[in-house]
Amino acid sequence: MQDIEIGLVGVGKIVRDQHLPALTESRDFQLVATADPSARLEGVPGYDSLTAMLEAHPELKAVAICTPTHLRYSQARIALEQGRSVLLEKPPGATLSEVADLVELAERQGCTLFAAWHSRFAPGVAQAREWLREQRINRVEIDWREDVRVWHPGQAWIWEPAGMGVFDPGINALSIATKILPRAFFLRDARLWVPSNCQAPIAAALTFSDMEGTPIVADFDFRQPSPPIWSIHVETEAGRLSLLQGGCRLELNGECLLEADEREYPGLYARFAELIRKRRSDVDLAPLRHVADACLAAWREPTEPFIE
Amino acid sequence: MQDIEIGLVGVGKIVRDQHLPALTESRDFQLVATADPSARLEGVPGYDSLTAMLEAHPELKAVAICTPTHLRYSQARIALEQGRSVLLEKPPGATLSEVADLVELAERQGCTLFAAWHSRFAPGVAQAREWLREQRINRVEIDWREDVRVWHPGQAWIWEPAGMGVFDPGINALSIATKILPRAFFLRDARLWVPSNCQAPIAAALTFSDMEGTPIVADFDFRQPSPPIWSIHVETEAGRLSLLQGGCRLELNGECLLEADEREYPGLYARFAELIRKRRSDVDLAPLRHVADACLAAWREPTEPFIE
Repeated sequence: MQDIEIGLVGVGKIVRDQHLPALTESRDFQLVATADPSARLEGVPGYDSLTAMLEAHPELKAVAICTPTHLRYSQARIALEQGRSVLLEKPPGATLSEVADLVELAERQGCTLFAAWHSRFAPGVAQAREWLREQRINRVEIDWREDVRVWHPGQAWIWEPAGMGVFDPGINALSIATKILPRAFFLRDARLWVPSNCQAPIAAALTFSDMEGTPIVADFDFRQPSPPIWSIHVETEAGRLSLLQGGCRLELNGECLLEADEREYPGLYARFAELIRKRRSDVDLAPLRHVADACLAAWREPTEPFIE
Repeated sequence: MQDIEIGLVGVGKIVRDQHLPALTESRDFQLVATADPSARLEGVPGYDSLTAMLEAHPELKAVAICTPTHLRYSQARIALEQGRSVLLEKPPGATLSEVADLVELAERQGCTLFAAWHSRFAPGVAQAREWLREQRINRVEIDWREDVRVWHPGQAWIWEPAGMGVFDPGINALSIATKILPRAFFLRDARLWVPSNCQAPIAAALTFSDMEGTPIVADFDFRQPSPPIWSIHVETEAGRLSLLQGGCRLELNGECLLEADEREYPGLYARFAELIRKRRSDVDLAPLRHVADACLAAWREPTEPFIE
């Protein structure tokens, strides 16, 4: 029953790679139109702006906003003011203040607002969360390292402040950690290494702890030769749980509990449909708040210039 | 009726200069004890730790936490877990995540949590807010400049990341602006000037706008020769409202509407008493969130080293 008419705002790489395939197989959504001044999807009515798309398609119940981060707030506002439900790609905004405002607006309008942290829909995340709920945790290690030249070729924007540098992948790790760990945690120390010709960090070393003093250390690095490392290790009284390959593989004491192909976006859209049907919102600010906290409290060290 | 027994946590300059005189004249509070490992107030029972103070004084209904920012979270947690109401000096925490957690804890415990933005209790703030509520606003200029050598002599901590540099006074301006302006506003651009031997900015130029596109520009600078400038100018269709001298003087088109001595802390404690009696909390994250947003999205420029 593809009964939720949806429009895509911004037709870029993430839409072609992830949103379009997920919507094509979705049982909930029907892709009706796109809005982008310079790109179209074949076979789908395209409009130059969100406003034009909404005007032409009053039947649209929802929009997914996949534009560059700094455009998302004003677009989400337009959609919510017209009573449409909104999915925000990660991160949900360029600033926390904008997202807090959208949460209030969605509440007033009775619309669904969904801050879509796609990494939370990786295959092993739900089981890791379930398993950890009952455990006594001694230490958490988050390693999120990849070669920026391989994974972000030619993306000069990533080195501007709003591009967030290594926090662009790192926030995915934080979105998983805040989902699977049973208690909130708080920044204790942050070191950022910023190339002398850039504004955003190429590497970050963060130390958190929860209210019981459990250490949670995170290393984000864009200077990792391939293959990438996207791992979270949780030392517990009952053994070492490892979420590997960005969440596709789950191990306990080195033995495989689960291994599956990445299917984040189908899960993400199923969740969006559930939220719309229940008339609820899901906006967890924690991952972006941790990045903002790190930027607020970090020691910054200049490092060698980055030349792609 | 001084019926609210209160303890002070951290006995430093702000306590002697502001909290103690305000509590001495308060009709609501009775100062019962202090907690500080290395300082006492004459005539008031002193303890080395918050825990020791709470144990010795089960009658304490409230505590005011005036310790360095990085200590506040764990102390506030202890007090809330024991069912005491908590006032947090500004800023309410070293990170937004900590403050968000305290808000949840206070709710669960049914205790009052008060993030005390003292500048909001400056004499002209309430009238400025009232007057602006009905106005059409064209532009806002926030100028907050002072000589760091005069106002923060020997305070090396202010140049560490958590010290926030020029945001330490600047957050006072943001706490007033978020109080008097009728609509929320959002960061559009931030430039920070950071001395090459420091971690925190000596000057900041921030541009915000609200959802109607009203420009709000803020200039914070620690390099201002005396006298300091602590002003907010609001251009409206009905004239130019100026809140001057940190909020002690209010002008409309250059004519004085109000001028009064600074009495922020008596007002702040009256508000805390009201919240306790009504069993409510008041934690507005907006000022700290704007600073975190600025740190997240700022262009940073190195500037000459700061030598006191």
